[in-house]
Amino acid sequence: MDAAEATAGSETDGGTLSFPAGQGLRLDSGGRLEALDVAYQTYGRLNAAKTNAVLVCHALTMDQHAAGTNPATGKPGWWSRVVGPGLPLDPERYFIVCANVVGGCMGSTGPASINPRTGDPYGLAFPVITIADMVRAQAMLIAALGIETLFAVVGGSMGGMQVLQWAADYPQKLFSAVCIGAAPRHSAQNIAFHEVGRQAIMADPDWRGGAYEVAGVRPEKGLAVARMAAHITYLSEAALQRKFGRELQRDGLSWGFDADFQVESYLRHQGASFVDRFDANSYLYITRALDYFDLAAQHGGVLANAFANARGVRFCVLSFSSDWLYPTAESRDIVRALNAAGCRASFAEIETDKGHDAFFLDEPQLDATLRGFFASTAQARGL
Amino acid sequence: MDAAEATAGSETDGGTLSFPAGQGLRLDSGGRLEALDVAYQTYGRLNAAKTNAVLVCHALTMDQHAAGTNPATGKPGWWSRVVGPGLPLDPERYFIVCANVVGGCMGSTGPASINPRTGDPYGLAFPVITIADMVRAQAMLIAALGIETLFAVVGGSMGGMQVLQWAADYPQKLFSAVCIGAAPRHSAQNIAFHEVGRQAIMADPDWRGGAYEVAGVRPEKGLAVARMAAHITYLSEAALQRKFGRELQRDGLSWGFDADFQVESYLRHQGASFVDRFDANSYLYITRALDYFDLAAQHGGVLANAFANARGVRFCVLSFSSDWLYPTAESRDIVRALNAAGCRASFAEIETDKGHDAFFLDEPQLDATLRGFFASTAQARGL
Repeated sequence: MDAAEATAGSETDGGTLSFPAGQGLRLDSGGRLEALDVAYQTYGRLNAAKTNAVLVCHALTMDQHAAGTNPATGKPGWWSRVVGPGLPLDPERYFIVCANVVGGCMGSTGPASINPRTGDPYGLAFPVITIADMVRAQAMLIAALGIETLFAVVGGSMGGMQVLQWAADYPQKLFSAVCIGAAPRHSAQNIAFHEVGRQAIMADPDWRGGAYEVAGVRPEKGLAVARMAAHITYLSEAALQRKFGRELQRDGLSWGFDADFQVESYLRHQGASFVDRFDANSYLYITRALDYFDLAAQHGGVLANAFANARGVRFCVLSFSSDWLYPTAESRDIVRALNAAGCRASFAEIETDKGHDAFFLDEPQLDATLRGFFASTAQARGL
Repeated sequence: MDAAEATAGSETDGGTLSFPAGQGLRLDSGGRLEALDVAYQTYGRLNAAKTNAVLVCHALTMDQHAAGTNPATGKPGWWSRVVGPGLPLDPERYFIVCANVVGGCMGSTGPASINPRTGDPYGLAFPVITIADMVRAQAMLIAALGIETLFAVVGGSMGGMQVLQWAADYPQKLFSAVCIGAAPRHSAQNIAFHEVGRQAIMADPDWRGGAYEVAGVRPEKGLAVARMAAHITYLSEAALQRKFGRELQRDGLSWGFDADFQVESYLRHQGASFVDRFDANSYLYITRALDYFDLAAQHGGVLANAFANARGVRFCVLSFSSDWLYPTAESRDIVRALNAAGCRASFAEIETDKGHDAFFLDEPQLDATLRGFFASTAQARGL
């Protein structure tokens, strides 16, 4: 499906934009993806002045289905609390675009895609990609959709890092930027948790050095363990205690290694359901992109330099009080750098015990903050 | 070696106390270990009045070698900062005993021990054990060594939980009790991290349903992943940032999945060296004992009730400001319960960025606090 075909028609649309061989993606690693597919969804319509486009950037394990029903899971899109009629990002008002990141496994080119040189899935022959590579692919999509300037780029977690990268690399294409629960670089602890996940995947004999698809197997156990470890970091200790505490699955202890505690059963379920919808190599590549992310290092070690050309962009930076993966202090670093660069930035720390995952959970203060920011910014944009 | 043989002789001694079939260990699960071995080390000499004995309780992955050289690793004992000449627990003054916990893999009966019913290692036929079971085995050892009252029972992390269990089950045998960096129960987050580790081990095909020893293999990859995940929880985010930050192993990024960052290399090393010294099934059983630990639940849901008969015991409770595995709030819960029970308790939160592992690291404030507590308590004991 080409771009014109994909965006024509209904209010909710989507498809895959294919950049043919020779028009692929330049990569930070120095390499190049010869051909590039970008799978995306849109909600609403681009107005005549092309001033109402919003790019939503997704987190590590999410995809282009921010709203509507995700065909892979049958569940509502991951940001159904924010994107939809009457919600902060209302398709009646905005043309909302969300694309699967390069390296992902929901239609955009990734390690499970066919390597044109071999005819087999890339596996580990896929190049290591970066957050900037993801953003470069998004910029190609946005241009192909006929959008010169985004009303807003917005995302949480890894999506927030993409927002920062947009502000660094394409400030002239942004009217506003909303970075939620993110950080300007991955900390040692973040890298450590990701390394545990990668080692769990690679320890699974069904990983086969990354060539599991050719072998007709999948490293499901390793990927499930990786997901379980990561999932703990997405929740706060308080939320785990409130939701599960030491509640048992059954009347008494099993005196064995069954899931005695509800939190064990919950985690096992998180692991098991994840492997149904995610590709192990994509997990390796996207976590690597996150670990490599260090926006200051890209700009001479000074984070403010990343935003030197973003003085015209209206920034909103949000953090969650109980997020220990990307704590508020890291959002404050972003705000300080924006201030140092002379950018217009509003900042709020949202009080919640839900931890990092608060960005897509039932968090009325987040909804209200987004609603307020988008409403006032839309007014400034004349929408 | 019997007890008499083991404790005779030099200042540093040890051995294995074997309780023969029929004199084994009663278990909380309702079962019984028919025969029981308890491997232990001693430092110093029991005085004539038998008033100077100190029981040191070890943490999850440690063993009876609190001081001296650990024969399994060739490295100094895990508490060489605290146990030794001129140190807070000086063998010139105290008779210090440290025993490998039941379920362990350094000589005490555990899942790698021979199951007398089959002649093969127990594997998963080993019964699930509890912290109280560990303490019951220690009490058998202490009695066999001719000690009626311990001058002190002391331990950090899981060792601290054993200290609390001692105070609940054998208060009349204690003059003092020192609980460091522990909690009265495992939180949902603690259980969750342990479950990740167990799933990592069980996901390893070389685990063989626990019967890997019979098969002549070992689930090394799974155990390494379990250790890596756990190790992150032993350090603070600040300590990881201070020690490693985003420092690279080499001059530049590998653009692959080698250990680019020093923190990755460090974690991999932690995993690899752990499998050389620890048994995977012991890891399953001991983490299970920790998860089952809930001292209040053993006493009608009221933690203070656990200490109802411990009014004569002098307690010292210590926590570390950057410990997020067993945060200070949980030590405060212990102190509140001790106060409610009318016990004599001193409490200190030690300021450090070293996280949970501070209890055996270079932490002068801990050393000084222990020195002060033991000195004043020894005076009260007439030592």
